Amino acid sequence: PTAKPQLAVASDFAQASLTELQNDPNIWVMQNGNYASTRYSALDQINAVNAKDLQVAWTFSTGVLRGHEGGPLVLGDVMYVHTPFPNKVFALDLNNDGKILWKYEPRQDTSVIPVMCCDTVNRGLAYAEGKIFLYQADTTLVALDAKTGTKLWSVVNGDPTKGATGTAAPMVVKDKVYVGISGGEFGVRGYLTAYNTADGAQVWRGYSMGPDSDTLMDPEKTTHLGKPVGKDSGTATWEGDQWKIGGGTTWGWYSYDPELNLVYYGTGNPSTWNPNQRPGDNRWSMTIFARDADTGMAKWVYQMTPHDEWDYDGVNEMLLVEKEIDGVMRKLLVHFDRNGFAYTMDRLTGELLVAEKFDPVVNWATHIDMDTGRPQVVAEFSPAANGEDVNTKGICPAALGTKDQQPASYSPRTGMFYVPTNHVCMDYEPFQVSYVAGQPYVGATLSMFPPEGKDHLGNFIAWDAVKGEIKWTIPEKFSVWSGALATAGDVVFYGTLEGYLKAVDAKTGEELYRFKTPSGIIGNVNTYTHNGKQYIAVLSGLGGWAGIGMAAGLTEPTEGLGAVGAYSSLSDYTQLGGQLTVFAIPN
Amino acid sequence: PTAKPQLAVASDFAQASLTELQNDPNIWVMQNGNYASTRYSALDQINAVNAKDLQVAWTFSTGVLRGHEGGPLVLGDVMYVHTPFPNKVFALDLNNDGKILWKYEPRQDTSVIPVMCCDTVNRGLAYAEGKIFLYQADTTLVALDAKTGTKLWSVVNGDPTKGATGTAAPMVVKDKVYVGISGGEFGVRGYLTAYNTADGAQVWRGYSMGPDSDTLMDPEKTTHLGKPVGKDSGTATWEGDQWKIGGGTTWGWYSYDPELNLVYYGTGNPSTWNPNQRPGDNRWSMTIFARDADTGMAKWVYQMTPHDEWDYDGVNEMLLVEKEIDGVMRKLLVHFDRNGFAYTMDRLTGELLVAEKFDPVVNWATHIDMDTGRPQVVAEFSPAANGEDVNTKGICPAALGTKDQQPASYSPRTGMFYVPTNHVCMDYEPFQVSYVAGQPYVGATLSMFPPEGKDHLGNFIAWDAVKGEIKWTIPEKFSVWSGALATAGDVVFYGTLEGYLKAVDAKTGEELYRFKTPSGIIGNVNTYTHNGKQYIAVLSGLGGWAGIGMAAGLTEPTEGLGAVGAYSSLSDYTQLGGQLTVFAIPN
Ligand SMILES: O=C(O)c1cc(C(=O)O)c2c(n1)C(=O)C(=O)c1cc(C(=O)O)[nH]c1-2
Ligand SMILES: O=C(O)c1cc(C(=O)O)c2c(n1)C(=O)C(=O)c1cc(C(=O)O)[nH]c1-2
Repeated sequence: PTAKPQLAVASDFAQASLTELQNDPNIWVMQNGNYASTRYSALDQINAVNAKDLQVAWTFSTGVLRGHEGGPLVLGDVMYVHTPFPNKVFALDLNNDGKILWKYEPRQDTSVIPVMCCDTVNRGLAYAEGKIFLYQADTTLVALDAKTGTKLWSVVNGDPTKGATGTAAPMVVKDKVYVGISGGEFGVRGYLTAYNTADGAQVWRGYSMGPDSDTLMDPEKTTHLGKPVGKDSGTATWEGDQWKIGGGTTWGWYSYDPELNLVYYGTGNPSTWNPNQRPGDNRWSMTIFARDADTGMAKWVYQMTPHDEWDYDGVNEMLLVEKEIDGVMRKLLVHFDRNGFAYTMDRLTGELLVAEKFDPVVNWATHIDMDTGRPQVVAEFSPAANGEDVNTKGICPAALGTKDQQPASYSPRTGMFYVPTNHVCMDYEPFQVSYVAGQPYVGATLSMFPPEGKDHLGNFIAWDAVKGEIKWTIPEKFSVWSGALATAGDVVFYGTLEGYLKAVDAKTGEELYRFKTPSGIIGNVNTYTHNGKQYIAVLSGLGGWAGIGMAAGLTEPTEGLGAVGAYSSLSDYTQLGGQLTVFAIPN
Repeated sequence: PTAKPQLAVASDFAQASLTELQNDPNIWVMQNGNYASTRYSALDQINAVNAKDLQVAWTFSTGVLRGHEGGPLVLGDVMYVHTPFPNKVFALDLNNDGKILWKYEPRQDTSVIPVMCCDTVNRGLAYAEGKIFLYQADTTLVALDAKTGTKLWSVVNGDPTKGATGTAAPMVVKDKVYVGISGGEFGVRGYLTAYNTADGAQVWRGYSMGPDSDTLMDPEKTTHLGKPVGKDSGTATWEGDQWKIGGGTTWGWYSYDPELNLVYYGTGNPSTWNPNQRPGDNRWSMTIFARDADTGMAKWVYQMTPHDEWDYDGVNEMLLVEKEIDGVMRKLLVHFDRNGFAYTMDRLTGELLVAEKFDPVVNWATHIDMDTGRPQVVAEFSPAANGEDVNTKGICPAALGTKDQQPASYSPRTGMFYVPTNHVCMDYEPFQVSYVAGQPYVGATLSMFPPEGKDHLGNFIAWDAVKGEIKWTIPEKFSVWSGALATAGDVVFYGTLEGYLKAVDAKTGEELYRFKTPSGIIGNVNTYTHNGKQYIAVLSGLGGWAGIGMAAGLTEPTEGLGAVGAYSSLSDYTQLGGQLTVFAIPN
């Protein structure tokens, strides 16, 4: 479709459901574009032929430094921009060069900053029913009037004094807004919570571990690879009460299938990072959950990395697509996991269809056993096998995974997935650690570096999720920590840590355009129209785990949970920032 | 001249003198473009016809928030960018998308921040002999190797514990580098100091007040409007020892006439702001100085605002031009003073030729008596006449003047001066204050607002310095706090506090182009070529006195020395930032 003029403000969208709104390519109504998290836009004014003519249309400084993740929402004539801590929100008037219609500037205690594991990031706002939902670092979920910025209600989702923080973007389904929790490095037991959009009342909360009443599991009906999980599966694979400080946080992305009424998301690492301290599979950390959107009941789960020894949080986004497999059209879930395997599953049943490495250097496991779903771990790269206080060397990928939170994109036109990846390995030395509420509960010393013989830390790849194959690869000097966007113009956009916004040909990966934005990009690219013209928007602002050295002023290579060393040369390319850059093709 | 390819790095310029280098339009070798401070460039690739096609070529975030004054220097393939406190310096590789060749990140005590009156600004670097000179907030003057960033020497110019700070851009003449001092709001007695560029050894220091040995005046040879100043003129108009804490700081701009070998600059307000506490003319505060560049001896002086009652610091730049007056070619000095009068003087003799209001709302004085050089003060608008603890209302201009430090530009092609101005009035209530070293020594409560019946706070004007007449005026919503640039393409550039970079027709003032940069602009626009192509560069980053509310997080209208109230709506247009934006016409 070609763009049509917009003369609307957010409140004009209040009556429409998100299921409808996600289909309007002129707006950008949720962080990953749609419930399926495909980050695909049907706009095609900017295409593979004219993308070379892109120019900067306008810019906006957020007035905040450190890592800017997520991206702006656009509803008609209004753009909503958020910032990292202190989590300001700006409503910008697109008819008036981004004049600030209103701003919301929460006052949060700065004591939350040191308990945020991986920079003071925030993955963005949610919109529904004329409301903007902000999930603050201190876990306060706030509903704002989209027209005025007036606070309608707020609710506190966790306790930062115990290390619980908020970084995820909320997702709204019908009358509920879902938020997760961060704090896997502080022994926080993860949960997803649904609040009523009208007043913030809690509707349900599903924990990642604990008794069935906590995990919202039915021993018979909830399945793992087709088999019932059994009674209290969320405690059965833990020693004693360890599940109570067991991690499995839910700080990533949430997807939704309106037809199945299922919410999909993944859980993070089990706490501590020292695997020897927590025998067992540590269910349901590192697990994909499919929950009933209304009740929270788990329909199916799949644990990708049982008994994690590498911090391969399973929280990355779930892309929901329809594809033919063996001649049958399937409702699929595609997930690029931190552990380096890309999973293609049946999202109705949780059946595992494909599980292949999406970076050939992945070495900690040879493959995934398709019957048990278990990775076949290579002893040499197993900190658990090697034991405490032993430095296991050369594990690929590093703890931040072959891909971290930076969301991929899918184009139904090419049938390919476009995946920002990390090309990083690590040494990992676990050690004994005691749990103290609010104190880091990490228990491992890491250092990170490029794979042997390589000098680049990232790749941007195109992936075939049916064959489980890389179609093409663009090597990048640093990890690609920015979310991708694919469009009907057959252009794919992504940002780089040096600050480039790049446009590449969706079919070939050929570079069409690049522009050096003010700071490193860890934001996610999006697109919208205004007055009938297509725009591309992205936040710059170096940070996140990869950029933690500069963001937090750390210089020791093993600081920042091991990430500082690998990315130290970033400061030769860019500095901290916090800017929106909007691109268009000049008239 | 048209641009010629540059394939040079800074060190290649080390053998050339600044008198030569200032004539190369391909580089931008000193903050105001040349010794004459005309901010004029002979480049004409970008002209009044094609300026509408300008686009953003590249950007760079400095990683620092608050007010970004001054602008980058460009020498061949290297651009030197500075920041406000903590005064970082970046050498950017123009051949490699601004990759950082080296950075210098001084560690300064943050205790200097609260003693900076008007934000943590820095007006930029100086270059000479293969060295970059940085003048830090804590008054440390540093010489860096332009090629490597290695510190060659440093010297401390003042004592921040007594309120002395550094914000000015140094100027180099031959083997000397000149720096001034800030702290007029802390009773700092101003001085200009010349240091040896080779090793930082002090060569001379000329105070604004004090005995002749301090002021470097010759009672007979130093003149004021043609008459000898007489013995110890720098103490004679002060009561007792008050001159020792008398202000007259030197935080503005310095110009130089190589033929006359004279350095020109102005001095700031006498301390305190309560005029009743310091009877007399308070010489040589508020004074234009012409000093011998080698010895510092004052050749002539002219006090614009004797016994200041309004904080009309006389530090604004001196534009040195040649023009015919009454049929005779004269070497002129043109100066747009805070007090609202534009002065045209003979820069050889210090003769006063023209003194006219450059904003018709100026009301504190009816005119300048051309014989005595004294303003004819209107009693109604005289806080001294009205007395202590009386609020004198509706004085125009406000303390920040009809123009503050933001430098004007002059085009020899149009013969016009392009002047960023303030259109602001004030209430001023003086009160008794005691001097305590390192504590504010202000003694007045101010509030600022637009002139009666007006709703805009600024104008960008073209001025005829011979006739003393405004040629055209562009009203601006906020004060124009950005330095102007005029080019041989007959385009004039300036920035606005909302963040627009604007290009206007030098002849008519007609707007040719505007672009909203990330943050409010208080930087000064410049231009250069790289690989034969003309670029326009400007720093964004709201702050300075006008932006002090947002920069320092102040909200009471009379805070920030009275400036917060008038500019409070700025936060509806832009937020803090710190970015370089470089423009060009796409190929
Ligand atoms: O276990 C957790 O609770 C948790 C939280 C977060 C977060 O909230 O940002 C990250 C991680 N873990 C993590 O493992 C990780 O790699 C990571 C990267 C980032 C980021 O924004 O760059 N956050 C997080
Ligand atoms: O008296 C002084 O020493 C002094 C210093 C400064 C400075 O160094 O920035 C300013 C002023 N005064 C001042 O009066 C003033 O209007 C002003 C504006 C600014 C600015 O950068 O926006 N600085 C200063």
